[in-house]
Amino acid sequence: MALDNANETGGLKLYVDLGSQPARAVTIFCRVNKIEAHEIGVDLRKLENRTPEFRKINPMGLVPCIDDHGFKLHESHAIMRYLATTHNVADHWYPKDPQKRALVDAALDWHHLNLRKYGSQLVINRVLVKVPAHKNFFPNLGEETRKSLADDASKTLPQILDALELMLEHGKFLHNADLVSIADLSLCCELTQLQDDHKNMLEHRKRITTWMADVKDATNPEFTDVHQAIFNYSKHVEELRAQGNFF
Amino acid sequence: MALDNANETGGLKLYVDLGSQPARAVTIFCRVNKIEAHEIGVDLRKLENRTPEFRKINPMGLVPCIDDHGFKLHESHAIMRYLATTHNVADHWYPKDPQKRALVDAALDWHHLNLRKYGSQLVINRVLVKVPAHKNFFPNLGEETRKSLADDASKTLPQILDALELMLEHGKFLHNADLVSIADLSLCCELTQLQDDHKNMLEHRKRITTWMADVKDATNPEFTDVHQAIFNYSKHVEELRAQGNFF
Repeated sequence: MALDNANETGGLKLYVDLGSQPARAVTIFCRVNKIEAHEIGVDLRKLENRTPEFRKINPMGLVPCIDDHGFKLHESHAIMRYLATTHNVADHWYPKDPQKRALVDAALDWHHLNLRKYGSQLVINRVLVKVPAHKNFFPNLGEETRKSLADDASKTLPQILDALELMLEHGKFLHNADLVSIADLSLCCELTQLQDDHKNMLEHRKRITTWMADVKDATNPEFTDVHQAIFNYSKHVEELRAQGNFF
Repeated sequence: MALDNANETGGLKLYVDLGSQPARAVTIFCRVNKIEAHEIGVDLRKLENRTPEFRKINPMGLVPCIDDHGFKLHESHAIMRYLATTHNVADHWYPKDPQKRALVDAALDWHHLNLRKYGSQLVINRVLVKVPAHKNFFPNLGEETRKSLADDASKTLPQILDALELMLEHGKFLHNADLVSIADLSLCCELTQLQDDHKNMLEHRKRITTWMADVKDATNPEFTDVHQAIFNYSKHVEELRAQGNFF
């Protein structure tokens, strides 16, 4: 991260680590919509997000965040809503119609305490806490609690995926939309991190896998480019596993 | 709950259980802003939210939700955004200015995986799972995990409250606003449920307690009326505790 250089650059600055799901969603959104953002890498594994320097940009110490000519904003959904309404972005991403917009908002809000909470709970407790590079990230809850949390998440996620299938019942995208929205993008980016270790949860859910392919098609090549970081990361986990010091 | 009667009533229908924080926030918002909503009680302790009848209104089986002349919407934040933009509601509740709106959105989004997640994690695992009437609500995670989760939440909440104090650093309401927004209301309603058992977390944080009093002043008498349910509930917990079969 070169925050000093970044501070000298005008325009919109976007702070990201592409290992982070919400950071990937915002980065894809900006690139697909040709929003000129100066992308600045913040390496979470080096705890660059917790430095006093970074906290001047986002006091919460999280990515993604933006600095739009001095206006600082965090939270990926708030950032996408803001950029969709202040830049030249097609209406389907965040519709002006109050009812269509409300359904996008509801899906985004639902996401936090459902797909994101339990998806993270599963991946963190079953995979990430075992990766040496992440050990400073997570509080020490003990092996028993980690296992119990991972089990709770794997029991809860199928119900959440059932609910997501209901939201996809009548159309190509969420809530019967013909074209992709910021809600499709955010939720889909979360699911990509479940694909490796937990593909059994997804593969028989054809409505979800079809929708994920549609979101990818609607946002490629940027979707695939931005996910390269997580594909590389998956290889790293596989290497650790092959060395026998993982599971 | 009288869903059949409710279905015969025209206009805006609001489904709530005032024991639920997000339901309280939406109810206060509607009453303060004189939005004519037909309030329909859904008793969570009787699992009325899980009936097939209720799932026709909200397939997620949660309160609050609304039915606005056939348009069905869930998620408290999405509901308040929608009502603020489709009814005659003063701008400060959800400002039209993109940057002011973005800060309200960021606070609402932040809430889910911070104050709401850890506030619920503490209250559920330390108090609610021990109340007999709630036992069907929560998965059986075992005593050890419940304790570990409550401990994790009590360690994390002070950092979250520190972050909230930063958000209150420069003004009477969140992000330096002079007047109350839907974010102030949502976050404050969450904190009221911490007041009884966890007042030690709040009482020395003068910026937060002053802000809570200001939110209450800005929304009274509706704030106090709507919180009567939780005040009664606190008495019930005290009675259980006095009987010695609680802690």
